Amino acid sequence: MENIKRVEPRTLSGFMELLPQDQIKFNEMLDIIKKTYELYGFLPEETPIIESSEVLLAKAGGETEKQIYSFRKGDKDLSLRFDLTVPLAKYVAQYYNDLTFPYRRYQIGKVFRGERAQKGRYREFYQCDIDIIGDGKLSIINDAEIPSVIYTTFKNLGFDNFIIKINNRKILNGLFDELNISQKKTEILIIIDKLEKIGMEAVKEELRKLELSNGIINKIEEFFKIDGTTDEKLEKLEQLGFNSYIFKEGLQELKEVVKYVRLFNVEEKNFTVDLTIARGLDYYTGTVYETNLVGYESIGSICSGGRYENLASYYTKKNLPGVGISIGLTRLFYNLKELGLLNTTKKSISKVGIIPMGSEFEEAVNISNLLRENNIPNEIYKEDSKIKNKFSYANNLEIPYVIIIGQEEKEKGMFTIKNMITGDQNMLSASDILKILK
Amino acid sequence: MENIKRVEPRTLSGFMELLPQDQIKFNEMLDIIKKTYELYGFLPEETPIIESSEVLLAKAGGETEKQIYSFRKGDKDLSLRFDLTVPLAKYVAQYYNDLTFPYRRYQIGKVFRGERAQKGRYREFYQCDIDIIGDGKLSIINDAEIPSVIYTTFKNLGFDNFIIKINNRKILNGLFDELNISQKKTEILIIIDKLEKIGMEAVKEELRKLELSNGIINKIEEFFKIDGTTDEKLEKLEQLGFNSYIFKEGLQELKEVVKYVRLFNVEEKNFTVDLTIARGLDYYTGTVYETNLVGYESIGSICSGGRYENLASYYTKKNLPGVGISIGLTRLFYNLKELGLLNTTKKSISKVGIIPMGSEFEEAVNISNLLRENNIPNEIYKEDSKIKNKFSYANNLEIPYVIIIGQEEKEKGMFTIKNMITGDQNMLSASDILKILK
Repeated sequence: MENIKRVEPRTLSGFMELLPQDQIKFNEMLDIIKKTYELYGFLPEETPIIESSEVLLAKAGGETEKQIYSFRKGDKDLSLRFDLTVPLAKYVAQYYNDLTFPYRRYQIGKVFRGERAQKGRYREFYQCDIDIIGDGKLSIINDAEIPSVIYTTFKNLGFDNFIIKINNRKILNGLFDELNISQKKTEILIIIDKLEKIGMEAVKEELRKLELSNGIINKIEEFFKIDGTTDEKLEKLEQLGFNSYIFKEGLQELKEVVKYVRLFNVEEKNFTVDLTIARGLDYYTGTVYETNLVGYESIGSICSGGRYENLASYYTKKNLPGVGISIGLTRLFYNLKELGLLNTTKKSISKVGIIPMGSEFEEAVNISNLLRENNIPNEIYKEDSKIKNKFSYANNLEIPYVIIIGQEEKEKGMFTIKNMITGDQNMLSASDILKILK
Repeated sequence: MENIKRVEPRTLSGFMELLPQDQIKFNEMLDIIKKTYELYGFLPEETPIIESSEVLLAKAGGETEKQIYSFRKGDKDLSLRFDLTVPLAKYVAQYYNDLTFPYRRYQIGKVFRGERAQKGRYREFYQCDIDIIGDGKLSIINDAEIPSVIYTTFKNLGFDNFIIKINNRKILNGLFDELNISQKKTEILIIIDKLEKIGMEAVKEELRKLELSNGIINKIEEFFKIDGTTDEKLEKLEQLGFNSYIFKEGLQELKEVVKYVRLFNVEEKNFTVDLTIARGLDYYTGTVYETNLVGYESIGSICSGGRYENLASYYTKKNLPGVGISIGLTRLFYNLKELGLLNTTKKSISKVGIIPMGSEFEEAVNISNLLRENNIPNEIYKEDSKIKNKFSYANNLEIPYVIIIGQEEKEKGMFTIKNMITGDQNMLSASDILKILK
């Protein structure tokens, strides 16, 4: 062979690449999420990874814009999508006349952010989004269906101990309204967002820097200290006796959401009202959600979202309110693995490995065809190799069953099947083997 | 609302974006391909879309390199993958010690090529690849399993009339060897590649420009005119009586492949030996494949591939022979649609639409829960709207069944189910509805 200048094969940092065992698990999780979303009738959507920068960055700015992968090709300014919400807005505005509203869609795909490299932060990662977009209006019951989707998704993924935190931005806005501090709401929300991390005393310290009076700060503290069961919290909010219209509207919505979340069979232990969550500063306008794994709060929310007034104002005059969530699967997968919570179960896709001892390939192909026709994933070990190597192959991949074909089997028209877990071994006819495997 | 500078929502040319009905069909096809690959036990692999340019372009050059989306981010030269073979080579070299050989993997994902915009050519498109990589050696029976995968995949996709063309590059190399024209083989193969398009006379005309003698040209013509059944072609190749070692080896391999392709139950009408196919100039070294839809040859091969001597020579000294194929699903989908061959069947994922006539939302949620627990995709129409609009929603999405809940149903604890195709309508209990839908 000619002289080849070799390059070290490597994967960029911040990009996930898995070995087969983990990839099988990752795909199983993707598949469960997709199937659960489809159980609720969400339609599949797929938008391009590359979009015109002008379209993709119509709204972006600040930190987000810095992270975006942008480049020129020919005379075009292009960017890689950094979330699935902007493409959704583009899609709904672009195909408005072809869609049926409420438009319920899911999109599962990779998005790209050139963030500073950091443990558990990825530059290319999966988002698994659902959104319900109304044409002009959208019933509050949709806001209650979303926690049901979250609940069913995580139950189907095998989780039991998670909590969906629900709040309503109108309640927060109403609080600021009531206290006449709306002009400082952005700064206050940024501080409140740290409550779980830094505690109430530190929050109050920071609030004082905003030149809020002690009376106001005490009111804020009183509000964010509201606790108890979900119903007790709702009751205490009522008892605040606020006159703010937006507050009353928010509380009414939250009550409706709680009522229907229960009807949707979400268990009481898996959801709560949490007045501290706000989810960003200017996008969400009503219901907001976060989801935590109980005992692993430090990994942050594993599924978040909320209600927005207007999805696509940068692309269309149409008023398109919506509600949606996103699961960041790449990051969740990383965290589960780090925490030892990833139950990888399979190293092979094949349920059966077929091993000809010598050159019994015709028999091997025949039984392989039969199994495949019966939807049983299988493969033939075809290499000319020592018996030991043939079995190592099946062992390494932890293939559950092995079918062995030697001279005796060939002569008798039978097959020896070995259960690789129990070690049980029997010489059987093809049809009996089918019965065992089905 | 503040003044917003609106951007026209649009998708770049050369990028596929589908409406829900087509997206459902596209995803069904993706899913069938994936499931078929898995029936043969191929392991899932997923490599990043963005790689270091140095790694991705280790081998590239010429036309390919010009098409690649490359850009800088920070101090890094990055590129988007342009196929799934280079990432496979990188992956196998990088994780060599963690993989079990033969390493059988599939990868289904988008690749990117900044080609000149052209009808049916995409800049972002799906490839669905399988490859089997040996460690040092790889049995020829693998070359026969590949057409079986192609066959099963296209049968499962609903095709009947396709033909898998099989050749062996060693036979072509042997021909050139035998005729002592090996130094011109690249030019000759480029010409032969046009045979189907331009015909034998034009091919001979072009061969003359290479200053080949009439005797040689006649020999070439004789070779490429070999016809008949698969067995007749193999017999005629034998009868040529060539002494070239490489020719004999290629013919022996082709016979083995044909023998096992038949054992793998590939129907005679779905494969053939085609001596004219060569698949590129320097990559494939043995068996090669192309697949045509009979009657639609003009759309080109819908699944191609072959055997290569050494997958990863740019990354490792290890000798890694392999055999594989790729289906370009985006392009195939476009062509099927253009040809009117796309049988889109569904406009909704939901099998059932639940319509409360008034505010019977509790009953709606209850029956929705029950259906979902029984794995029946369904959705509730939740908007406060005219009855007419509620039914238009279900009609537009062609949801097969509608469950109607009005005052009467509520009082009786029953549900009216309507088959939207036949128009049949019955008021039934929840459990009877389940029976109908299951």
